[in-house]
Amino acid sequence: MNPRLLQIKKGVLDKNDKVAGSLRQRFHEAGLLPVNIVSSPGTGKTSFLEKTLTLLRQHHYRVAAIVGDLATDNDAQRLANSGAPVRQIVTGGNCHLEAHMIETQLEGWALADYDMLFIENVGNLVCPANYDLGESMRVVMLSVTEGEDKPLKYPPMFNSADVAVITKMDIAEAVEFDRETARRNIQAVNPDIPIFEVSAKTGAGMDAWLDFLIAELTRQHSAEPMKG
Amino acid sequence: MNPRLLQIKKGVLDKNDKVAGSLRQRFHEAGLLPVNIVSSPGTGKTSFLEKTLTLLRQHHYRVAAIVGDLATDNDAQRLANSGAPVRQIVTGGNCHLEAHMIETQLEGWALADYDMLFIENVGNLVCPANYDLGESMRVVMLSVTEGEDKPLKYPPMFNSADVAVITKMDIAEAVEFDRETARRNIQAVNPDIPIFEVSAKTGAGMDAWLDFLIAELTRQHSAEPMKG
Repeated sequence: MNPRLLQIKKGVLDKNDKVAGSLRQRFHEAGLLPVNIVSSPGTGKTSFLEKTLTLLRQHHYRVAAIVGDLATDNDAQRLANSGAPVRQIVTGGNCHLEAHMIETQLEGWALADYDMLFIENVGNLVCPANYDLGESMRVVMLSVTEGEDKPLKYPPMFNSADVAVITKMDIAEAVEFDRETARRNIQAVNPDIPIFEVSAKTGAGMDAWLDFLIAELTRQHSAEPMKG
Repeated sequence: MNPRLLQIKKGVLDKNDKVAGSLRQRFHEAGLLPVNIVSSPGTGKTSFLEKTLTLLRQHHYRVAAIVGDLATDNDAQRLANSGAPVRQIVTGGNCHLEAHMIETQLEGWALADYDMLFIENVGNLVCPANYDLGESMRVVMLSVTEGEDKPLKYPPMFNSADVAVITKMDIAEAVEFDRETARRNIQAVNPDIPIFEVSAKTGAGMDAWLDFLIAELTRQHSAEPMKG
């Protein structure tokens, strides 16, 4: 890469990390669990998140979402079906969300009124890897239709994630999904990462995922010092 | 975006366009049809390209491929099954191929010995849109599992393409693919684009796609002046 471009890119990332650090502090003080969801386009982030928001609300958790897209507010409209407050960021040409975009969207939201904030990133398995959004949990998603080798081909994203979710399990058999190979490839780039297998359509696997989120919220509320 | 970053980015794109222009000239002089294939990760670019190369070779066309990935040479190994010469570009962190990478890979290849060169870009629906690789044909792919709204959400990529290919048609019914909506959304961002519906697994739709490629090669060999 052009060395001048590299240097300026580093400056942009340093600035992003500063804003992300200040967001993380605010989230922590508000007792809020912030979750950043990344995947390729078409993995099913929006369906999965709509289901997650709906189920958490049924369990009386106070949840909200911010969603990023290059264009359209289709995803925000879909997520709003859950009844949770949702804000849309349209990034224009930008292939990832940045911390300052989240900061801007938070204006007017009383963070202490929420338990969890979900950020649905732009559909991209490359660009969002380097941009910390102040999250406590980064979730990388992979659908059964994408090919079991994706973790090996996009290592920075799978390596930087805290949790992996395999989606569309309802069609796993139809597309001859090789579960063992997929899990082995995820673990090859991120050995200890928890892996959930879900279907937003049938609801399969969603209970284990919710239990995990709720345990993480409880853990964050306990007295241990702030991460990051 | 940071104005200094924007300015340098423009410089990078201008430089890329210059190299791409010189590549296009070389391809044209060699009578070679260069095809740039872009899609989200997991759409099935490699399976589709492997099938395309195999079938073209059965019809005695001389074909070659260059494939770009963040990491691994899995795709080059798969494409080599077709019997065609294949070279792999590992981009490291880069989310797209650039013209100078193609230029470097071409060293030692006698372009006039080939009829078509396929370039499989990095799996990404955003970054490759701005980078001309000197191709005569840009193919954007969308699988039936990705959601019919992808063209609306990633307009630059669908808008900059010359051809759209819908893949994995063999599982269209299982995933409740809405063909009319998908076609309408592609045409909303690129009204006159030809759309092919294929299954690399069953071979359905591949004949029409091959006919189109061969017609394009013939057209390029006719006396009309060079594009671009």
